[in-house]
Amino acid sequence: MDPKTRIALDVMGGDDAPACNLDGALAAVEAGLAPARLLLVGDRVTIEAGLEERGGNPGFELLHSEDVIGMEEKPAVALRSKPRSSIAVATGAVKQGAAGAHVSMGNTGAVVGAATVGLKTLPGVRRPGIAVTIEFTGRPVTVLDMGANVVPKPEHLVQYGHMGAIYSRDLLGCYAPRVGLLNIGEEDSKGTDLLRDAHAQLGDSGLDFVGNIEGGDLFKGTCDVVVTDGFTGNVALKLMEGFAGFMLRMVHGELEKNGAAWGPEVLASLHKQVDYSEYGGALLLGVNGVVVIGHGRSDARAVANALDLAARAIDADVNAHIVAGLEPV
Amino acid sequence: MDPKTRIALDVMGGDDAPACNLDGALAAVEAGLAPARLLLVGDRVTIEAGLEERGGNPGFELLHSEDVIGMEEKPAVALRSKPRSSIAVATGAVKQGAAGAHVSMGNTGAVVGAATVGLKTLPGVRRPGIAVTIEFTGRPVTVLDMGANVVPKPEHLVQYGHMGAIYSRDLLGCYAPRVGLLNIGEEDSKGTDLLRDAHAQLGDSGLDFVGNIEGGDLFKGTCDVVVTDGFTGNVALKLMEGFAGFMLRMVHGELEKNGAAWGPEVLASLHKQVDYSEYGGALLLGVNGVVVIGHGRSDARAVANALDLAARAIDADVNAHIVAGLEPV
Repeated sequence: MDPKTRIALDVMGGDDAPACNLDGALAAVEAGLAPARLLLVGDRVTIEAGLEERGGNPGFELLHSEDVIGMEEKPAVALRSKPRSSIAVATGAVKQGAAGAHVSMGNTGAVVGAATVGLKTLPGVRRPGIAVTIEFTGRPVTVLDMGANVVPKPEHLVQYGHMGAIYSRDLLGCYAPRVGLLNIGEEDSKGTDLLRDAHAQLGDSGLDFVGNIEGGDLFKGTCDVVVTDGFTGNVALKLMEGFAGFMLRMVHGELEKNGAAWGPEVLASLHKQVDYSEYGGALLLGVNGVVVIGHGRSDARAVANALDLAARAIDADVNAHIVAGLEPV
Repeated sequence: MDPKTRIALDVMGGDDAPACNLDGALAAVEAGLAPARLLLVGDRVTIEAGLEERGGNPGFELLHSEDVIGMEEKPAVALRSKPRSSIAVATGAVKQGAAGAHVSMGNTGAVVGAATVGLKTLPGVRRPGIAVTIEFTGRPVTVLDMGANVVPKPEHLVQYGHMGAIYSRDLLGCYAPRVGLLNIGEEDSKGTDLLRDAHAQLGDSGLDFVGNIEGGDLFKGTCDVVVTDGFTGNVALKLMEGFAGFMLRMVHGELEKNGAAWGPEVLASLHKQVDYSEYGGALLLGVNGVVVIGHGRSDARAVANALDLAARAIDADVNAHIVAGLEPV
């Protein structure tokens, strides 16, 4: 087994760690992932005991780490004060070539910080960006950046367009991805200086650029890749999460009021349609390694999906395609 | 009747103008608004014929205008080339003291532009902001700015906090409004320079400032007023509109699949809960006059609600309270 095809899973990160992460690793194996592809990173005793409880270790390799970075810790401070945290050790495994991917449900800022500093950016990439795939229209839409780069330059946004298009092609089977720029109106002149510059540069980028799109277009299938700054992307993602939860509670209330026996199935079906963990979480694009950031609230299924996303990103060689795609022609 | 208590309604603006606007004016009268408080602005012949069809003019005054600014026209260009448009004439009526409020379902940019240039800002106000009230938790939340000020300065955001709090107190009956700053994390250090500066200034503002809130907090009742730049606010509003429509279609599909006889009532109930036109549209706060911007897709009920909002803003003397509230103590 080429160590570069292995996935380092941060067993200690996330709200329900380590239980959920171990369950997720086993679920991924059940779904077909070779156990030898998984490198479980965390407290060795905890992991061994956890696997024992779950019927034994099916063949995972273990990598011991000594510390855990909490979900609420300040990333920069935590990375400095805990150099042997599971996030740091898993990132180190990718850096040293012992794994090709790092999957964590832990502190997003710490995962991004460790990857940016430890793995460095891919040749030609100016700034990494977090890509999240959502699906509302029967067709996935990839939005980036979701928070890695809060004050980007226009050329960063253009690179996000390229990286998002490659992601969309390699991992979502979209062969001719259309790229849109999130803005507050369709006209070229709308928005901030950043967006006007990015609009002009995207028009010359060789991408299938459909121009500005508005918030509501995310639900209309207008494009396959949505480019935005990390501030707006992060607000939008959390807004959608919050709104989806709110709407589902509202629907639940209405179904209960009307005594619908089929309420639970309807809710489960609706929930699945607005649940982006179906896509395995977010991919940090542009760093020299595959980095998947799951939601802190991930359940075992979401962890398994995150591992699947990492495996597919390695197998499809997304990063090589990004490097090739960003090379000046 | 003091002419300053009158409302100039742009009869020609909106997707279903003039029909919807005339229906809305009549609905407002039915709900208790004195016909003498309404000044209908638009093509006189069209308005007279429209009222005739609807059983006659109950006592509205008419003000003739010659042109209409289309929903898709560029505001600055349209305002220059059509100085006698219904938006310009209605704004002029407020400027000249023939009315105290302008209500339009027309081109938002043109309404804002006409008001900013024609009415000027209130004493002490640096930049006007668009406030929209939404309700997801049984308690209204006012968000501003929704698009008037795309690149604000920190002091503009602080003023939005003050104006939003006064709006919330005067028109929504919230006696101790809590003000939050839309950001991508709770810590003071989060976000852009703009937000860090605004956070510090809001802390010293005398407002009940609860600190940074995230996108998902809009659905949790964390605060009564949400301050944000016009770009983020506009993206967020359109995202929520699009998402609400999408979720309702999804729920509709599930109800149909399960053959629920009570589907339509459930949908109507859900729709009402996510429909911000319940609150009569957006209020442009900080200009010397009351300006209500309705949604282009407003129906008669939404128009009536917008007229009601304008009447209440005049009666509550919101603008005098804003001027007093912004005075240095």
